[in-house]
Amino acid sequence: MVEPRESFGRRLPEAIAARSPLCVGLDPSAALLDAWGLDDTPAGLESMCRTVLEAVAPHAAAVKPQVAFFERHGSAGLAALERVFADARAAGVLVIADAKRGDIDSTMAAYGDAWLGEGSPLAADALTVTAYLGFGAMDAVVDLARRNGRGLFVVVASSNPEGRGLQEAVMASGTSVEAGLLAELARRNAEECAQAAQPLGSLGAVVGATRTVGSLDLVSLRGPYLVPGVGAQGATADDVGRLFKGTAANSVVVNASRSILSAGPSSSGVAAAAASLGAELRDSLG
Amino acid sequence: MVEPRESFGRRLPEAIAARSPLCVGLDPSAALLDAWGLDDTPAGLESMCRTVLEAVAPHAAAVKPQVAFFERHGSAGLAALERVFADARAAGVLVIADAKRGDIDSTMAAYGDAWLGEGSPLAADALTVTAYLGFGAMDAVVDLARRNGRGLFVVVASSNPEGRGLQEAVMASGTSVEAGLLAELARRNAEECAQAAQPLGSLGAVVGATRTVGSLDLVSLRGPYLVPGVGAQGATADDVGRLFKGTAANSVVVNASRSILSAGPSSSGVAAAAASLGAELRDSLG
Repeated sequence: MVEPRESFGRRLPEAIAARSPLCVGLDPSAALLDAWGLDDTPAGLESMCRTVLEAVAPHAAAVKPQVAFFERHGSAGLAALERVFADARAAGVLVIADAKRGDIDSTMAAYGDAWLGEGSPLAADALTVTAYLGFGAMDAVVDLARRNGRGLFVVVASSNPEGRGLQEAVMASGTSVEAGLLAELARRNAEECAQAAQPLGSLGAVVGATRTVGSLDLVSLRGPYLVPGVGAQGATADDVGRLFKGTAANSVVVNASRSILSAGPSSSGVAAAAASLGAELRDSLG
Repeated sequence: MVEPRESFGRRLPEAIAARSPLCVGLDPSAALLDAWGLDDTPAGLESMCRTVLEAVAPHAAAVKPQVAFFERHGSAGLAALERVFADARAAGVLVIADAKRGDIDSTMAAYGDAWLGEGSPLAADALTVTAYLGFGAMDAVVDLARRNGRGLFVVVASSNPEGRGLQEAVMASGTSVEAGLLAELARRNAEECAQAAQPLGSLGAVVGATRTVGSLDLVSLRGPYLVPGVGAQGATADDVGRLFKGTAANSVVVNASRSILSAGPSSSGVAAAAASLGAELRDSLG
């Protein structure tokens, strides 16, 4: 009998404590592949990701493949992504599939089967999702994630300015869209924490490092945060430390893509960039 | 030299006029495959879709593969979807890829390359997208769609109740999220119509048939509508006729999935269901 997997709400903090709060984005864009001297083909993507995985596995809690760059190559690109997932599992690093899927009912459940299902070739430790159609229509995926010891990161407050209008819009209840989503995630995490007697639930939020302190209640989530916006997008490790002050220990994982990948194709260069940013984030979030 | 493709804003109304306002959803769920006596495998999905395509091509303007059901089978599922796309092109029916992708900047552009790019094995006539991260962050895909004579359908007002809170939330500008999105799409379509001297732009909106008349300005879009919610979800052809009264001729395409697919596995049963609903929709929208 296979031992059930521990919950994502336990596994992520362990990985952060063991390595660092760094999540390395696997974003094999045409521009980066060119800079690395690799072809813009599934084989080129796979080669870049393999180099990055080996270099960053000792320094990062997780890697975050950006699914769009693989999907761009059709089914052959997804086949390369499946091999990257297998490599990441072998390297012992958590995988957050950045797919930002978002649909309802049986369709959303099918996305759950793809990215969080046991035996799926694309199964990741966690999946990013968006909730334009309502977080309440995603119950099946929330249940699936918990059952399989996997997690979800719901985009709450993105790092780009174009998202502000919608995310700060005020619902009939009087709360903003982003605050309402965060409260709903907190409610579901509280249920999970009570049932499983654990400090952190498995429902995470994506909150950009470029947000300002104080506009959102970040300490009540009792779940993990995935934080974009550091490095090429302008925010610093200190900004992250200020923004997430008071949140649970080892609950914040910070993504960096271009600032790590542009140190390649030298494996030692990528490793050094990851080690350095990982240490900086550990200090600022410590 | 290859003749440039006509714009999606021209091609969709032509297809509706030639056949009907019906769009048949290709939703090969585990439950439907079982009802058809097919295996829940990529080969089973492909077999169901091929039967449906042949049966509905004379009666429907478009088909709408629900990408989640293919993604559920990983890269092998996407390979099956690529073959379904090729079959649909051969059958002369438009393909709307229902993927509801939504991201920003270069990531969104990569989704555009996948689903709207020339030479991509997954290239469709139009793609559904969601804009939790802001429609303004999708400019690259809007431009790509127009350049390639393809379209986008942005989810504005979904057919499920869980989406109401967010979609009706009020932005700082004083308009609701859904009305703001619709106005933004109308603005971009007006630009395209002026430049190309055509009545309809290529930026469409997804609006559920379950919405009530009068809460949204649907007549100003000057673009196509993709309408879920008819049949299994409870709305009727008459509801659609009332809701879209006053919109441009042949600009509304109505999706039905379960109500058509459950008439299978008999090809003639599927064809009869599509012909009947297509005629009903032509009458109510005429």
